[in-house]
Amino acid sequence: MTDYRPPLKDIEFVLTHVADLPSLATFEAFPYADPEFVVGALGEAGRFAAEVIAPLNEVGDDEHSTLADGSVTTPTGFREAYAAFRASGWPAVAFPEEVGGGAMPGVVATAVNELVTTANMAFSLCPMLTYGTVELLLTHGSDDQKARYLEKLVSAEWTGTMVLTEADAGSDVGALTTKAVPQDDGTYRITGNKIFITWGDHDLADNIVHMVLARTPDAPPGTKGISCFIVPKFLVNDDGTLGEENHVETVSLESKLGIHASPTAVLAFDESVGELIGEVNQGMRYMFLMMNNARLQVGLQGVAVAERAYQAAVEYALERKQGRAVGAPKTEKSPIVEHPDVRRMLLLMRAQIEAARCLVFKTAEAIDVSHHHPDEAERTRAAERLAILTPVSKSWPTDMSVEVTSLGIQVLGGMGYIEESGMPQHFRDARITPIYEGTNGIQAADLVARKLPIRGGDAVREMLEEMAGVADRLAAVEDLAPIGAALHDAVGALTEASLGLGKMLMEDPNDALAGATPYQDMFGLTAGGWLLGLSALAAHEGLGGDDDEFLADKIATAQFFAGQVLPRVRGLLPPALAGAGGLFAIPVDRL
Amino acid sequence: MTDYRPPLKDIEFVLTHVADLPSLATFEAFPYADPEFVVGALGEAGRFAAEVIAPLNEVGDDEHSTLADGSVTTPTGFREAYAAFRASGWPAVAFPEEVGGGAMPGVVATAVNELVTTANMAFSLCPMLTYGTVELLLTHGSDDQKARYLEKLVSAEWTGTMVLTEADAGSDVGALTTKAVPQDDGTYRITGNKIFITWGDHDLADNIVHMVLARTPDAPPGTKGISCFIVPKFLVNDDGTLGEENHVETVSLESKLGIHASPTAVLAFDESVGELIGEVNQGMRYMFLMMNNARLQVGLQGVAVAERAYQAAVEYALERKQGRAVGAPKTEKSPIVEHPDVRRMLLLMRAQIEAARCLVFKTAEAIDVSHHHPDEAERTRAAERLAILTPVSKSWPTDMSVEVTSLGIQVLGGMGYIEESGMPQHFRDARITPIYEGTNGIQAADLVARKLPIRGGDAVREMLEEMAGVADRLAAVEDLAPIGAALHDAVGALTEASLGLGKMLMEDPNDALAGATPYQDMFGLTAGGWLLGLSALAAHEGLGGDDDEFLADKIATAQFFAGQVLPRVRGLLPPALAGAGGLFAIPVDRL
Repeated sequence: MTDYRPPLKDIEFVLTHVADLPSLATFEAFPYADPEFVVGALGEAGRFAAEVIAPLNEVGDDEHSTLADGSVTTPTGFREAYAAFRASGWPAVAFPEEVGGGAMPGVVATAVNELVTTANMAFSLCPMLTYGTVELLLTHGSDDQKARYLEKLVSAEWTGTMVLTEADAGSDVGALTTKAVPQDDGTYRITGNKIFITWGDHDLADNIVHMVLARTPDAPPGTKGISCFIVPKFLVNDDGTLGEENHVETVSLESKLGIHASPTAVLAFDESVGELIGEVNQGMRYMFLMMNNARLQVGLQGVAVAERAYQAAVEYALERKQGRAVGAPKTEKSPIVEHPDVRRMLLLMRAQIEAARCLVFKTAEAIDVSHHHPDEAERTRAAERLAILTPVSKSWPTDMSVEVTSLGIQVLGGMGYIEESGMPQHFRDARITPIYEGTNGIQAADLVARKLPIRGGDAVREMLEEMAGVADRLAAVEDLAPIGAALHDAVGALTEASLGLGKMLMEDPNDALAGATPYQDMFGLTAGGWLLGLSALAAHEGLGGDDDEFLADKIATAQFFAGQVLPRVRGLLPPALAGAGGLFAIPVDRL
Repeated sequence: MTDYRPPLKDIEFVLTHVADLPSLATFEAFPYADPEFVVGALGEAGRFAAEVIAPLNEVGDDEHSTLADGSVTTPTGFREAYAAFRASGWPAVAFPEEVGGGAMPGVVATAVNELVTTANMAFSLCPMLTYGTVELLLTHGSDDQKARYLEKLVSAEWTGTMVLTEADAGSDVGALTTKAVPQDDGTYRITGNKIFITWGDHDLADNIVHMVLARTPDAPPGTKGISCFIVPKFLVNDDGTLGEENHVETVSLESKLGIHASPTAVLAFDESVGELIGEVNQGMRYMFLMMNNARLQVGLQGVAVAERAYQAAVEYALERKQGRAVGAPKTEKSPIVEHPDVRRMLLLMRAQIEAARCLVFKTAEAIDVSHHHPDEAERTRAAERLAILTPVSKSWPTDMSVEVTSLGIQVLGGMGYIEESGMPQHFRDARITPIYEGTNGIQAADLVARKLPIRGGDAVREMLEEMAGVADRLAAVEDLAPIGAALHDAVGALTEASLGLGKMLMEDPNDALAGATPYQDMFGLTAGGWLLGLSALAAHEGLGGDDDEFLADKIATAQFFAGQVLPRVRGLLPPALAGAGGLFAIPVDRL
């Protein structure tokens, strides 16, 4: 097991040069976001994550959360760690002051979340779900609901869940059948079985606030007939105190490949008392509004679990001696980090993690700007960018995390396959991220069918032009010119794919959907190259001061990405534009 | 859990059109290898694998093999299944008649092994290790050793192990320190601790024959001072009966990510009685001779575990209904197999599995030809081809298996992450294959540093020309021309990489080693395209008979591979030729 060393300097660099915290700090909404203060605070958060939360990562994997007599028990130490987390104030960092929050930009919360998630991904899911609940209440809750629920959720005294999935309604949320029957007192009685409810029951908090999607008796079919209800584990009295227990039964917990400490519950609602949020039949719309952030948080999990694997792989590669590297003294064994192929694997991990971190933080910035920029045109532009980048930021970093944690195993060789080394856990934990919060295939369909057509394709075109502009700037700097050339080539391929898929979308949507995933992969890789290119430009400009080693490493990482990862983009162009014909050439009964 | 349906028709097609069993059947060494008979026999083997061995795959994963009081107990049903396997005669299929074998070509054994391995990878490792022991004894054992050990091993009454690794000697086998001290009676006393010993102890057989690498007291350092010893669990008397127990202690079993039923043992040898095989200090050479086959068997495991995941994914995709596919009736939910992205994932699995199967069987054919072709020049040519294809056949199918089993999880969505679905086991089992029997990084170094230089690069060049010839033939057939074009492009890139790395190898080996893995990936992909191209040509020629559906599917699969997978090759060219400079740009203390 490896300790966690928070990559604070990298995060600071991204906040400064990619997510532009200095600009966000000038917004009225963020009065305390002074970058220097933020960096200091992140140092505290990093220490907390490393010292309090990280040591429980392996314990949680070994012990799992368990269900007995209808109640869930979390692994040893989780209750104490959660209590300390709640007391730390970190959960509230990005919520408005009036509900007890820290009024920080979302990019700062993203930084805190990265630290907590890297320390312990299974643990981090509990607050992550709570943030979604808070967001939903802030945006759509009534004053009364806000008064009774918000403070406790913001302070993390209570936790929240998102209750969407049913056995026959997974990616197809509109197929759900849970019933909500209105009562004379204005409440509803909720009845139905829900599955895959993350942190659906646990022993960390006094109450759990379930946000449940269900149908009223006269609701239209599909997604247009879904409403959203607050269904607390314990009913909440008018004065905010806890009342009697609601009828929410934890039927079972899933036995999963990873994130063992996170209880994934089957919940049975049986005439459970629920309160409608907002208006009837608007549930899907409310959920969609929230999903941008939730999807981004899953993308961040990809960065986090990959970072943890990278740190463990580096530590092992520095210590483990096998063979003799070219040029090493005849009588000495070399640490394996000196072997080119091991070094290649480590840089492949590092470069992709840094690219993905940039991408996730850039998308988080778009959320902040879309909500809080003083200029409406800028808000609109950021909202478009957010719409486009959300599926990309969810999918590419999570696919990357599977590749990178797998590389982590490979660096360790035989030891990497032994559970005791800790590396298998990262690989197992990572594997959920391309699935939940909308599979990466669903993200790709969203990107191609909904996002590519924004403003007739102009929104995507403008982003591509921005990327090409960065490639131009890189090409003009001698040391960075190869990065610029690689980025140009990737942007060129991505532009060709965008145009081709845009055309297919109008002619035969199946052809466009057939290329959606390769297209999304192209987009993620190219966006990573764009933002690492930006980083390299910033680093190059900063050279000549006290930080030259760090900045030189940033440039080296961007160069590696441009040389070894970006060329994948062109290989994805043929599959992106292949159309659906070949996919359906073999009939289903002969698959 | 999904039943296993042996892909007998696919295997028959590969044996006929790729591995050329009809030609092998004309060799004197294979008097019974009549293709029609072989196909019938494989049907029996498939039924046995599906009915007897496959049902234990999940049981083994759940129960693990366990150690108590120094002895290993295998999971429920394994003893009975192994006894039935032994009684079936399949283990002996490819060994010479004079030791009780079936005198079949290795390609036939490869087919049997695929069936058994797909049914249950953890189970299959036990006979696989035994085959290696037999091969070692056949080639280097004394007459007396053969008399006492061979029959029992060929019949699978006893099992064998390969005992190489020590805590500080993994990839660097030459660093091992286990001692072998000669005794007056001609035996040796072996002392040392060995790790990662697959099926190092178990309850399936009456005796376990360990093949142990160790050093005699005056041995030179490194790989030149390693000898190989037979160290049985129970000593074997001159008449072949079992004597007293040898001193071989099973210290512990590893807790691994996957292949839970396969006991991976730490063995302590303490003055254990051993017999030298062959000559002193020749142990590494003997092992290397055997490794071609062992590495190929691991490549085959990649095909097998991926095939199992594919079958389970298809079954789920046919049954599971979510959403509505483009063009489906408004009121009906579609089976997810109708969604283009799901179909794309399934074909990505299928096409790569078929390509990898071709590659493994083609390499197995090279073993047969290299040993048994009547013409010496042909034997030499096949030996060269075998040398080149061995690292490729070990690495690409195994990396593929991690990708494909991961796709299997993705097809199932949330269910794919639940252990109960069976899919996580395939993903976990697959992950060992790029590691053991020489990590894929070691394979890549072997390919570039030892194989590429064979005959000054001419051996590789001739293979590339052969591939280009197939591309020409494809280009001349209208329906297959796109496959030809894609293959031409891949062969062109691979040729460029081969020339570039060959040059680097002479100038700075580190530069060549830096590109070894991307080069190996290029080679695997291109070889896959070459052999699927051959398959498509054979299928195209066969059209017009009773088998048109099957043959059309073969062509469709090759087209998919050419359109969606082969283009990756060109994206790997820049990393293959990038050199080592970028890898070492960041100093180790700043990784």
